Amino acid sequence: MKMLSIRSVGLSLSLQKGLPLGSGLGSSAASAAAAAVAVNEMFGKRLSVEDLVVASLKSEEKVSGYHADNVAPSIMGGFVLIQSYEPLQLIELKFPAEKELYFVLVSPEFEAPTKKMRAALPSEIGMAHHVWNCSQAGALVAAVLKGDVVGLGKALSSDKIVEPRRAPLIPGIEAVKKAALQAGAFGCTISGAGPTAVAVIDDESTGHAIAQHMIQAFLSHGNLKASAKVLQLDRLGVRRILD
Amino acid sequence: MKMLSIRSVGLSLSLQKGLPLGSGLGSSAASAAAAAVAVNEMFGKRLSVEDLVVASLKSEEKVSGYHADNVAPSIMGGFVLIQSYEPLQLIELKFPAEKELYFVLVSPEFEAPTKKMRAALPSEIGMAHHVWNCSQAGALVAAVLKGDVVGLGKALSSDKIVEPRRAPLIPGIEAVKKAALQAGAFGCTISGAGPTAVAVIDDESTGHAIAQHMIQAFLSHGNLKASAKVLQLDRLGVRRILD
Repeated sequence: MKMLSIRSVGLSLSLQKGLPLGSGLGSSAASAAAAAVAVNEMFGKRLSVEDLVVASLKSEEKVSGYHADNVAPSIMGGFVLIQSYEPLQLIELKFPAEKELYFVLVSPEFEAPTKKMRAALPSEIGMAHHVWNCSQAGALVAAVLKGDVVGLGKALSSDKIVEPRRAPLIPGIEAVKKAALQAGAFGCTISGAGPTAVAVIDDESTGHAIAQHMIQAFLSHGNLKASAKVLQLDRLGVRRILD
Repeated sequence: MKMLSIRSVGLSLSLQKGLPLGSGLGSSAASAAAAAVAVNEMFGKRLSVEDLVVASLKSEEKVSGYHADNVAPSIMGGFVLIQSYEPLQLIELKFPAEKELYFVLVSPEFEAPTKKMRAALPSEIGMAHHVWNCSQAGALVAAVLKGDVVGLGKALSSDKIVEPRRAPLIPGIEAVKKAALQAGAFGCTISGAGPTAVAVIDDESTGHAIAQHMIQAFLSHGNLKASAKVLQLDRLGVRRILD
């Protein structure tokens, strides 16, 4: 509201959250984005997309740290690359309209606190791993822009820095990844800080089959119950759905 | 020739090298690529593009280490992302045909041995710098595929890991970069292991003006004489030019 030059009017927002908390799906960012857009809609819609990202960043900072990884795509839809923060430079990576992309999201009943998952990250990275992950980041960007779902999955699956440190903290996740790939997923990794596992595929029904294999693997290898969703890439981001 | 199943026939190649040695322009790779393609042309042209990269890699390995950074684009033209070596996975990044891209290459009379330049690299990288350079790598790939020369220059100019370690070993290079940017270049960095400075621009005549400023900066800040070339992006790679 400060950005809209509006003094507090005692605004109260009611949020219907469709995402589980602490799942690694960026639910705090989705809420921040929804609130920013709702307030903007109410008070004259004067903020630009970039303003909305900045506003959401402020809320996100309080619960999850100052990072736009989740708020930027929540606002803008699709894939967004954050090139820098000072100044904020966002690059929209358009996935081709004619291509299909589905995410298989399997969330186990297991708490993976973001703090603990962050602490698992190394502070220093060897040059070889740095070069490797940079290559995968580049390959991921190329795959998104080309609409190459196979390449996207492969790059997503090839992290040598973050995933190997976090996987041991989520019971069964390595077996889940293996099960997803064997069932035909193009790639699989940990979503955000976990514990949700995310696999990618280009059609919905295969996605549901993959989900069943992943749920089974969480149960037999991690002794964890899990639930799945198969969701299509959202290309629009946050929007007003009721008038 | 082994790949072509040809036993040695005492082949002798004569190379007309159009690039200076030890300049950071990948001249050893260009020679390796030329030799591989020449031999393939002579003996039935049976090797695929990927085979030719593998053959060139073997030669390059002997003089510069096992890396495809220079041989892959020498063979394939344009921009090439190396996703992995085992197996060799190359991603062609097509710069749009309708866009123009020029490189301003300014080589000072100064020897920057590749070995010394490599030794200047850190073996460990902090997480913040790793994330930063990954973002720039992604931004670079996006800029190439979109034909966004401004974004390409910006990403090229934003290295926080390699350039800051090598720049102090090349007298005047920081002033050269500054001069290039002030003269209108979209970006500037060290080419390969140096000492050549490379700037990017989208038209040739501005390129020549930028070159003059860079040469002047090498002289006044590094006390080095330098020569410049303004070259257009080659999209074809190595090819037979005489029948």
